[in-house]
Amino acid sequence: MIIVMKKQATEKQLTEVIRWIESLGFKAHPSHGVERTIIGVIGDERGKEGIRQAEFLEGVEKTIPILKPYKLASRESHEGNTVISVGTIEIGGPDFVVMAGPCAVESEEQLMESAYIVKKGGAQILRGGAYKPRTSPYSFQGMEEEGLKLLEQVRTRVGLPTITEVINPADVDLVESYVDILQIGARNVQNFPLLKKVGRSRRPVLLKRGMMTTIEELLMSAEYILSSGNPNVMLCERGIRTFETATRNTLDISAVPVLKSLTHLPVIVDPSHAAGQWQYVIPLSRAAVAVGADGILVEMHPTPEKAVSDGAQSLKPEKFYQLMEEIKTLSSAIKH
Amino acid sequence: MIIVMKKQATEKQLTEVIRWIESLGFKAHPSHGVERTIIGVIGDERGKEGIRQAEFLEGVEKTIPILKPYKLASRESHEGNTVISVGTIEIGGPDFVVMAGPCAVESEEQLMESAYIVKKGGAQILRGGAYKPRTSPYSFQGMEEEGLKLLEQVRTRVGLPTITEVINPADVDLVESYVDILQIGARNVQNFPLLKKVGRSRRPVLLKRGMMTTIEELLMSAEYILSSGNPNVMLCERGIRTFETATRNTLDISAVPVLKSLTHLPVIVDPSHAAGQWQYVIPLSRAAVAVGADGILVEMHPTPEKAVSDGAQSLKPEKFYQLMEEIKTLSSAIKH
Amino acid sequence: MIIVMKKQATEKQLTEVIRWIESLGFKAHPSHGVERTIIGVIGDERGKEGIRQAEFLEGVEKTIPILKPYKLASRESHEGNTVISVGTIEIGGPDFVVMAGPCAVESEEQLMESAYIVKKGGAQILRGGAYKPRTSPYSFQGMEEEGLKLLEQVRTRVGLPTITEVINPADVDLVESYVDILQIGARNVQNFPLLKKVGRSRRPVLLKRGMMTTIEELLMSAEYILSSGNPNVMLCERGIRTFETATRNTLDISAVPVLKSLTHLPVIVDPSHAAGQWQYVIPLSRAAVAVGADGILVEMHPTPEKAVSDGAQSLKPEKFYQLMEEIKTLSSAIKH
Amino acid sequence: MIIVMKKQATEKQLTEVIRWIESLGFKAHPSHGVERTIIGVIGDERGKEGIRQAEFLEGVEKTIPILKPYKLASRESHEGNTVISVGTIEIGGPDFVVMAGPCAVESEEQLMESAYIVKKGGAQILRGGAYKPRTSPYSFQGMEEEGLKLLEQVRTRVGLPTITEVINPADVDLVESYVDILQIGARNVQNFPLLKKVGRSRRPVLLKRGMMTTIEELLMSAEYILSSGNPNVMLCERGIRTFETATRNTLDISAVPVLKSLTHLPVIVDPSHAAGQWQYVIPLSRAAVAVGADGILVEMHPTPEKAVSDGAQSLKPEKFYQLMEEIKTLSSAIKH
Repeated sequence: MIIVMKKQATEKQLTEVIRWIESLGFKAHPSHGVERTIIGVIGDERGKEGIRQAEFLEGVEKTIPILKPYKLASRESHEGNTVISVGTIEIGGPDFVVMAGPCAVESEEQLMESAYIVKKGGAQILRGGAYKPRTSPYSFQGMEEEGLKLLEQVRTRVGLPTITEVINPADVDLVESYVDILQIGARNVQNFPLLKKVGRSRRPVLLKRGMMTTIEELLMSAEYILSSGNPNVMLCERGIRTFETATRNTLDISAVPVLKSLTHLPVIVDPSHAAGQWQYVIPLSRAAVAVGADGILVEMHPTPEKAVSDGAQSLKPEKFYQLMEEIKTLSSAIKH
Repeated sequence: MIIVMKKQATEKQLTEVIRWIESLGFKAHPSHGVERTIIGVIGDERGKEGIRQAEFLEGVEKTIPILKPYKLASRESHEGNTVISVGTIEIGGPDFVVMAGPCAVESEEQLMESAYIVKKGGAQILRGGAYKPRTSPYSFQGMEEEGLKLLEQVRTRVGLPTITEVINPADVDLVESYVDILQIGARNVQNFPLLKKVGRSRRPVLLKRGMMTTIEELLMSAEYILSSGNPNVMLCERGIRTFETATRNTLDISAVPVLKSLTHLPVIVDPSHAAGQWQYVIPLSRAAVAVGADGILVEMHPTPEKAVSDGAQSLKPEKFYQLMEEIKTLSSAIKH
Repeated sequence: MIIVMKKQATEKQLTEVIRWIESLGFKAHPSHGVERTIIGVIGDERGKEGIRQAEFLEGVEKTIPILKPYKLASRESHEGNTVISVGTIEIGGPDFVVMAGPCAVESEEQLMESAYIVKKGGAQILRGGAYKPRTSPYSFQGMEEEGLKLLEQVRTRVGLPTITEVINPADVDLVESYVDILQIGARNVQNFPLLKKVGRSRRPVLLKRGMMTTIEELLMSAEYILSSGNPNVMLCERGIRTFETATRNTLDISAVPVLKSLTHLPVIVDPSHAAGQWQYVIPLSRAAVAVGADGILVEMHPTPEKAVSDGAQSLKPEKFYQLMEEIKTLSSAIKH
Repeated sequence: MIIVMKKQATEKQLTEVIRWIESLGFKAHPSHGVERTIIGVIGDERGKEGIRQAEFLEGVEKTIPILKPYKLASRESHEGNTVISVGTIEIGGPDFVVMAGPCAVESEEQLMESAYIVKKGGAQILRGGAYKPRTSPYSFQGMEEEGLKLLEQVRTRVGLPTITEVINPADVDLVESYVDILQIGARNVQNFPLLKKVGRSRRPVLLKRGMMTTIEELLMSAEYILSSGNPNVMLCERGIRTFETATRNTLDISAVPVLKSLTHLPVIVDPSHAAGQWQYVIPLSRAAVAVGADGILVEMHPTPEKAVSDGAQSLKPEKFYQLMEEIKTLSSAIKH
């Protein structure tokens, strides 16, 4: 960390700040500039935020952290990329992975039909929500355990691994007994009891970035899961909230190469929630392949006009097949 | 709701849309404009989002909701303002209420000293966190039940009602057995299992707006609590996330009069988290009084430079006393 | 436009609102819902904002516009896509166009060397700034007319059309006498005297989206140029300002398909200003190709570490050659 | 400035970076931490951005500026507060100043009536736009010189100094011959030719913060005016663009104390454009007084429902009188 002294700071104030730094077990390394003195604080500041209180001392203008606050999630802590195995599927490896299916599990028929289309299109993983975090208490809240049971049945019958969202720490044990991948939604990216709980799960976790979460905060949330013992975390960019309203959220496509440079964890893109309109899902998925993501999480519904939630952003089957074709073309162009 | 047809929509498409609207139990009222036909959908659309799927029908350009999606939180549903009683204190009534204290409960000494200062300054309620939602897993996570016990002791000894944050539905019963007001933090504003749980509590709830939450979404989160049976909800503006970095967040002071016009619930301002720096807490608190808020939630620490969290935004005791003086002056000027 | 009446609006208020609508030459079409009456205002509301004052009448809750406020820029007003010819180059046609070069013209040597690399790499247009809008008055403000002369020399010697920024209406005549395409920068997207002036130019205009400009506002700014008589406008997405600081701005990649659906004008992506760091320019350029943009505007400098501005986001020559190779591969994959 | 080396940077890379720093005339002061070496760059980095190119050198992770990039605008460069005299009125002194009037000058009658109300209410300065920067080319663009002439007539007849917006450098000489204060609007906050031009004017300048402008950028724009020779600059907070749509923009009330701590220039608040709805103008004006602003710029129209622009955010005369009363009460409460 660096402490920047005020222009008019006195020698005595400087001495006090140095004494204080040393009292916390750090070394102080002052540097006298033309206008200001700065002090390098030497030592590992992570987890010792007491040092930020330096801003309270007389003569101090501000503090500037130097080290990134995450460790296990950082590229420096891990050789190569994390590759997560789900059955025979590898996420974070050379193949682009598509997780597709309806927003919500609605019925056996709807889920079976979805799974059949997902498999026929060549996608690797089936998605479907049993617990739905909805803005309104009057909206459909999901089929809950009934939905989980359907997911398990379909997994067995169609032979596709499944991913579903969990929203309450108390449900994690139940959910992980039915599905292959646990999803933490955007609204729960800083639900720390939930992160700690899935950190003790044996299932891989897909962690969505929140609408107003910085990339650094996302990595800190991943750090909660990793430091609780679960190494199989994949990150998901799903659009951030900005002033623009032409799309539901603004897909931060740059987050993919930024994350790739900062962390060894796989990076997935969710074009459906970012766009909020199915028309934009195919071009955004192409962009996800081209920019270097490891996969996408995409909403497809056999009959979107009848969907109980998020119909407007779900692909119809024929559009989904078109998407899968385009992804194959682009993926192989990029590899060669 | 209004359905706007595309410019080139055919008569047949219009007929199909109208048939579809009627099949959902609504009435359709088309209006033929110069460039476009619009259809008024007559009926209560709340909770029946199926109607939004109209965007999927041929010839439809977009849908526009007319009714506000919340009911119990809306001013129209409730005569006058909600006034919440906590002991002899009334929140939402004529008096401006100050809830003050340290970010985190750290020790008996620290809490007792804080409570003494809070009371001496004339504030009505003591705040202090026992469960701390921290960005980093390596930061102090709170004293948990130990902290709750200290809050209860101090409440008894000093005679101040208390408010503390709860972050896990599983802890609500425990927390409400120790304190007077439950706080839902910014990061949990859309933690729906938690909202439902505090909605079944007998304690008043202070619901903080999230960094990324619109005013409408905040009211929808209040609606979760209200519709679960707890009528005693107060809303708290604590700064939203914007591009500006000179302050930790951007205090949306306009949210106070906007909320006052939309809802009957009390509105509290948290200047400490909004600013992130103690220097700005006093002017922002004055603004909160002047703009018409019902109270503030403010961080004060006997020795901020030793605080385990948020020291930089905590007022020292002498600044806290100054704040209380300025609030009294302003409050009485506004009343007369 | 639609006028939404308040829940408690009286019959008399409704009558007054209707009379007022008719006094402005519109027809009123009321629709009585369960909770509210809405009034369809029939007639072309564009340019007649007086109608928005309806919000001032007794009993009115709000007004909702239905028509898009732009005409000439809208897809509905123009068959097919606008293709802009610059010499033998076509922008908006089947070929992906690359405009590359240094941020600022610095010297004859620097510009000649840049032009040689741009041409060798296979890009079609040379960029270089002679007037630099800089945040600080103490920063290099550009070579001005001297720089324009160099652009013209290089154009002749190397045989590449050129694009440069203009920042003052008083300079437009001079600038258009030296270069092929006029650029309006992000900070001038709502500099209306400048837009009107380039609207009377015979040169094509590249209009950059501002950091905080909505897509609709961008199209309204294009409408200023189009309605002043210049039909050759291309739009440029260059990143918007959000809370995320890992990149200089957030590239709104979704803006490309959104613009493609709303307007017939070509859409260009500027990955350099969006990212602010050269490391991310190649993946973002790939995403621009894949998402369906018509071209990119990219910063390349022969020796970025010596650049007088924006060095950190400029590609070195070898990275630029790599970029051009990757674009070729992707473009042909997408076409087939 | 501080240069942070990468964790794995070699000794040789460090030596090269130091040599490079020294070649630019700065001194290098390395500090070897546990994980990273940082280098303090000693010397005045302002205006010498070449130093930022350090990010291009091998082994460098990032650069961190320490000095604020503005000089003349900073509190450190000027003893006490700048007080701007306009006739007998002082802006930035002990009195709270109100500048009020219609958005646009529409006719002699409208302006005279407005001026009479403004004066009767006790406001000190009359506002009125002659050049209107409008999002749409089809909207009323202002009366231009005709409007300036009306402003001058009214100034003489009613005895109120005037403020009006200027949007083109070519108009500055004309405008300053008719009015007392030049206003730079939000959309022109980084129109650098315009800033330089008003920097050579003898009239005081009110500089509005842009919707997308950080506080630091606003101060840099003030620096353009100050460094061009005009010391009479006042800053105006008028709301920033955020994700919240309940108000037209989000009034960043914290910007007032932040600016007060950073600069000696007067700070004005424009509650009308921030809110976009007249209902919120009075509470926001009260907040402006309480937070410590030097004045407000507020829209008032004799008959808002007939205004050619911004009627919805203009106060009616009786509301304006109420506002003036409330401001007087609050101002005197704060002083005592």
